[in-house]
Amino acid sequence: MTVEYQKETAKNWFEDLRGQICDAFESIENDYRGSYCDREPGKFERKSWFREDNPEKGGGTMAVMKGRVFEKVGVNVSTVYGEFSPEFAAQIPGADKDPRFWASGVSLVAHMHNPRVPAVHMNTRHIVTTRGWFGGGADLNTAYPNDSDTGDFHGALKAACDKHGSDYYEKYKKWCDEYFYVPHRNRARGEGGIFYDQLGENWDDDFAFTQDVGRAFHDIYPALVRRHMNEEWTDSEREELLYYRGLYAEFNLVYDRGTSFGLKTGGNVEAILMSLPPEAKWK
Amino acid sequence: MTVEYQKETAKNWFEDLRGQICDAFESIENDYRGSYCDREPGKFERKSWFREDNPEKGGGTMAVMKGRVFEKVGVNVSTVYGEFSPEFAAQIPGADKDPRFWASGVSLVAHMHNPRVPAVHMNTRHIVTTRGWFGGGADLNTAYPNDSDTGDFHGALKAACDKHGSDYYEKYKKWCDEYFYVPHRNRARGEGGIFYDQLGENWDDDFAFTQDVGRAFHDIYPALVRRHMNEEWTDSEREELLYYRGLYAEFNLVYDRGTSFGLKTGGNVEAILMSLPPEAKWK
Repeated sequence: MTVEYQKETAKNWFEDLRGQICDAFESIENDYRGSYCDREPGKFERKSWFREDNPEKGGGTMAVMKGRVFEKVGVNVSTVYGEFSPEFAAQIPGADKDPRFWASGVSLVAHMHNPRVPAVHMNTRHIVTTRGWFGGGADLNTAYPNDSDTGDFHGALKAACDKHGSDYYEKYKKWCDEYFYVPHRNRARGEGGIFYDQLGENWDDDFAFTQDVGRAFHDIYPALVRRHMNEEWTDSEREELLYYRGLYAEFNLVYDRGTSFGLKTGGNVEAILMSLPPEAKWK
Repeated sequence: MTVEYQKETAKNWFEDLRGQICDAFESIENDYRGSYCDREPGKFERKSWFREDNPEKGGGTMAVMKGRVFEKVGVNVSTVYGEFSPEFAAQIPGADKDPRFWASGVSLVAHMHNPRVPAVHMNTRHIVTTRGWFGGGADLNTAYPNDSDTGDFHGALKAACDKHGSDYYEKYKKWCDEYFYVPHRNRARGEGGIFYDQLGENWDDDFAFTQDVGRAFHDIYPALVRRHMNEEWTDSEREELLYYRGLYAEFNLVYDRGTSFGLKTGGNVEAILMSLPPEAKWK
């Protein structure tokens, strides 16, 4: 299988997964019967962007929905290519001698009206330099977490991991816990999940694992939303949600490597900051 | 005049200025006659903190008020001392050979309920290593800026500058414009003001300038608040204010050197993040 075929196959999968997830989320909007259910169900709006004037070419499509369950959800697929700057190339596997790269991925952040419904982040990607690898993960972020949701979310990701490597779940759960830790608050951003990167052992296996992570997310997260979406909430619970989102914004703006790299190197600002909550508070 | 006397004199001034500003702001709360004026006028609450277990000793006092004009204002005075870490010492004038330092300052951020009343940031500080210098500045941040407020604010700072150096205003206004620029949004954070650092020519002159900057702030900012505080505002203007505050939070968390240094080196988180808006939105 040529590298070109691999790239095309990965890109198509990310776009397929985006479509499946958007469908599942719109169907949740349609089935909702809780507060504000007199409002119109949300629909995704898609907007394409291109990096015409940039040394890194390519572009992507942002799909954004502001609904009655999903306060703001963005699902972004992008495929970019070009040459890394010398400083960045030095940090990227396989790019130190030849700075050319190709990268495609899907990333998703959902912020929910209901404080009892988990917010979530998911991303999977394929990167090709003189080497090629997959990375990604998913993590749950709930203002009022409960063991059953947390357990089911981790269980779904564990099942995907276990199909591909007996040490994957333990290793990638730990990586996630480390990545999404907020040192200045001395706490985790949320309930965790998995995070993996530079998985470049065997393309077929790694791609199959990345697909299974996407499928696991597609199966479990909508189920968790449906489990809680029709529950009532109080103003003070909503207030707690907004403070919790302050922590989320802090993490993304201070520590998230993708965000700070993107902002400081002229990435698509709208796509990068799609992850920020629609509303947040600080005490 | 010994260095110890200089330190004590500067520290006392920062504490005096804090007191004068808090009085001026509480008096605004008392005189308010606009929306929500059935609420109790705000009062500052003071809270002291210490760095007992830290290689950098010292501490400070945060004064925070959540009122009916001032949605959230924090005035922080801190005096810390100890030894810079080797990485940090290398970047600080006079600390490369001897890492010991002493630093005292007052910093203030005010976020207002009324979208027509400017938010503001002010900070002045004195730092002593094997060298000693002053730094600081003030800048205005209004969701609906107008030329008259912007002109009067700059005019007050210019008058303070002009007393001490014919090139001060031009130089420090430019520095402020550069510092508070948000590259990823391709815009300034606000209407600017002045910013200066490493002013270590002559202690008496530099201290007198720093005092005049503080006095200029104390005279002009409360006057601008009083000019607009009783004006009405609409829900959509308030919404615009919240989006404008999103930009403010982005700047502070992504670019502000003090914030990222403080967060990543174990500073007092509550004092550092006092600058964040009480509420913000992102589109």
